[in-house]
Amino acid sequence: MQLFYCNNITDGGICTLDAEESRHAVRVLRMHEGDTLHVTDGLGNLFLGRIVVADPRDCSIEVTSPAKTDLMAQQPACKIHIAVAPTKNPARMEWLVEKAVELGVGEISLLQCDHSERSFLKTDRLERIALSAMKQSLRTLLPAIHPVVTLDEWLAAQQQGISSGSLKPLHFIAHCEADKPRTPLSTALVANTDTTVLIGPEGDFSPREIDMAFAARFKPVSFGENRLRTETAALYAVAAFNFVNNL
Amino acid sequence: MQLFYCNNITDGGICTLDAEESRHAVRVLRMHEGDTLHVTDGLGNLFLGRIVVADPRDCSIEVTSPAKTDLMAQQPACKIHIAVAPTKNPARMEWLVEKAVELGVGEISLLQCDHSERSFLKTDRLERIALSAMKQSLRTLLPAIHPVVTLDEWLAAQQQGISSGSLKPLHFIAHCEADKPRTPLSTALVANTDTTVLIGPEGDFSPREIDMAFAARFKPVSFGENRLRTETAALYAVAAFNFVNNL
Repeated sequence: MQLFYCNNITDGGICTLDAEESRHAVRVLRMHEGDTLHVTDGLGNLFLGRIVVADPRDCSIEVTSPAKTDLMAQQPACKIHIAVAPTKNPARMEWLVEKAVELGVGEISLLQCDHSERSFLKTDRLERIALSAMKQSLRTLLPAIHPVVTLDEWLAAQQQGISSGSLKPLHFIAHCEADKPRTPLSTALVANTDTTVLIGPEGDFSPREIDMAFAARFKPVSFGENRLRTETAALYAVAAFNFVNNL
Repeated sequence: MQLFYCNNITDGGICTLDAEESRHAVRVLRMHEGDTLHVTDGLGNLFLGRIVVADPRDCSIEVTSPAKTDLMAQQPACKIHIAVAPTKNPARMEWLVEKAVELGVGEISLLQCDHSERSFLKTDRLERIALSAMKQSLRTLLPAIHPVVTLDEWLAAQQQGISSGSLKPLHFIAHCEADKPRTPLSTALVANTDTTVLIGPEGDFSPREIDMAFAARFKPVSFGENRLRTETAALYAVAAFNFVNNL
């Protein structure tokens, strides 16, 4: 099955695929007027549509039926938000985004930390990779990828959500200081619970940042005694969340 | 901490690092005679040694003490063996090997399947990546990476082990035929149990291969309704095994 993306699709209406999706449908897959295709809005909705104008730059789709339930059933009841410091090598972040989306990550934040070796990373390329991975894995939710902000700014923005009385969501920081008590991720995760995990840079979080996260009610978790690369730790958190929730 | 690899190290003796490890210790890290370093044999043993000859091509080490217990404790009581069909793009397999070793894979077999788009893959480069990932993640077990064989040959070789009376180890095949009954991996995995997982090529296993695996007592497992790339499915199995066993 081939899944297409259209951010302006609505039930029962006519929508147009963007240039890249149009080219893929008409040029690459050689689809014609009258052919049916699956289209998602990246918001969790899946539509069945029929091509009304097979224009390789501006393909028009008539929505013929609402979402197929078997795919809609994949929409997770809970989501995992990964907040990670970009690695020095941007290819490792691109790899992380592809794999995390395949495994159902809900949201990705990029952090600048005290020990970061990279304080800037363009999100447009990461967003294209996320879109491709969403389609490839037949998911209908396109995770948001937030531009780099400092951990201080990010925590300040999160505080609102955490202190708003909802104690249900879990907030973890995966730091590497073995002398500070940490709960193994396998015992810290709770099924059907929104979870946010902070993953530090190659040089780990600074003691100042760890204390700041604790003050923001983030609980320390451990991914085991082995030294995982930043992107491996981030993907491991997504895989574990997927495993616990059968995403 | 820096971990070095030496396949000829023995307790209380003198060993020499190979050219690459010698260069790394003496040229890159500028270590001198008398400096101490951690060395593993890749067989699960870790030694503390002292440099006696700081030769950048042939560094000699005197073993001063046996394995440190805190690292030795990481040796898993059970292991996961991934048998996977190489992807068309070899870079995806190199990525898989690095991440799987970081997450504690025990053994990797490469398979040629009916639908394989790649029937050959050199293992020497994969072995270098595995060695580097073992050292980076501070593990002391270097997983074996077996050259490509057909699934038929591989299953015939496995049969011996499976039919030798030991029913304890788990053997799974992760195929994508949704109409055939499959157990979710999350319920199929059992803690402290050696596990082998078969991962097919981009085009999935053929019906013939699935029946052949069933005949070899491999049980069908599902990784969920989403379509995972071959290398993502393989790493997910390793991550799930790690999660269940706290590797």
